[in-house]
Amino acid sequence: MTNDHHTSKQYDADLETVRSRVLQMGGLVEQQMLRAIDALVTCNRSLIEQIIADDRRVNALEVEMDEMCSHIIARRQPAAGDLRLIMAVVKTVTDLERIGDEAEKIARMAKLISDGDRLQMPRFTEIRRMGDLALDMVRASLDAFARLDTSTATQVARDDIRLDDEFRGILRQLITFMMEDPRTISLSLEIIFVAKALERIGDHAKNIGEYVIYLVKGKDVRHVSLDALERDASE
Amino acid sequence: MTNDHHTSKQYDADLETVRSRVLQMGGLVEQQMLRAIDALVTCNRSLIEQIIADDRRVNALEVEMDEMCSHIIARRQPAAGDLRLIMAVVKTVTDLERIGDEAEKIARMAKLISDGDRLQMPRFTEIRRMGDLALDMVRASLDAFARLDTSTATQVARDDIRLDDEFRGILRQLITFMMEDPRTISLSLEIIFVAKALERIGDHAKNIGEYVIYLVKGKDVRHVSLDALERDASE
Repeated sequence: MTNDHHTSKQYDADLETVRSRVLQMGGLVEQQMLRAIDALVTCNRSLIEQIIADDRRVNALEVEMDEMCSHIIARRQPAAGDLRLIMAVVKTVTDLERIGDEAEKIARMAKLISDGDRLQMPRFTEIRRMGDLALDMVRASLDAFARLDTSTATQVARDDIRLDDEFRGILRQLITFMMEDPRTISLSLEIIFVAKALERIGDHAKNIGEYVIYLVKGKDVRHVSLDALERDASE
Repeated sequence: MTNDHHTSKQYDADLETVRSRVLQMGGLVEQQMLRAIDALVTCNRSLIEQIIADDRRVNALEVEMDEMCSHIIARRQPAAGDLRLIMAVVKTVTDLERIGDEAEKIARMAKLISDGDRLQMPRFTEIRRMGDLALDMVRASLDAFARLDTSTATQVARDDIRLDDEFRGILRQLITFMMEDPRTISLSLEIIFVAKALERIGDHAKNIGEYVIYLVKGKDVRHVSLDALERDASE
């Protein structure tokens, strides 16, 4: 074993495997989200079962990736950029797994909404828009990871502010809706939980974007203002 | 530098620092939770500001701990139990930071509840009970980490099922409450979000318990059934 990784093809191959596995896991999570949002409208039962089944694959990938990263640390003593990659991946897989969980929750909620209710589902256009934005954010964060692109990562942080605004808007509208017709309270609450799940997915995408900035720039931009994040990402 | 850490006092000291920092961060998060639950009843503004200020310390600790772990990986090439400690810590600090975030959210919601509303706050006893259970779970998970105690860690996973049940119970009661008196919808929603925050805190405590089992037993018990977790933890 050598610590000079540049001479080790196997080491380079291991790092490449880690990178491509993250993107594979990300692709699976994206698909879960897409299906979950569709399931809300179509109430396609087999789609819902598929999302739940995929969640097991996502969970297994999380465990596998952490094992892979541990193995590389133990065998290779990664340093500098390689170590940042490993640290970023260990954090990223947790966020990806949680995005998968939220997609699964949305799917389970879709299952609870009866066909009758579905026809009169309040604020559906807005939920769809929130879902599209959250999905775009997840895609952009994975794209930023794939291309080591800090400006896309920064865009995800900016979009998270928009997503939070959308969430608050939907919440306000649904409160009014429930007050006007208390029979819609249960259904409206389901929609609020769906919106909340999408809002959290945005947080996870933002986290992934932050890890990309750390990976590329070596700066930890968690818990800093958007201005500071933009500065660190572009320096 | 040597890879034989048993001869390196500095390395042992570094690992000890990591362990004690996790517990320090955990103590801070526990205090945030305790104060957040109190703030719900007392609406003590200075308490709320304190929780928000503490959140910045928790955030700083998260960043610091990850740096410390990266440093140890780069310098020491940890293996076996030492590596599991580092991996467990890298995951644990994320969960602790999120617990702090949820406590901060509860504090901010406490701020929104007016004094008049506070007097007639629905399901307060139940929320208090949920808060106490969630706090016990966080304490137990940190205790399990401190004493490498897998049976306490297993108990946290068991308690999480109880906490989820409590959440569903409160949700059902609040739905009825809102339907009976739609004027309480806004307030009830705040309480639902508080309950949701507590439910998530329980998830994070459970995660920490799972990392303890991984640390002690070398088995990754995420995403397994409670039965399998109990078996792995006691083997």
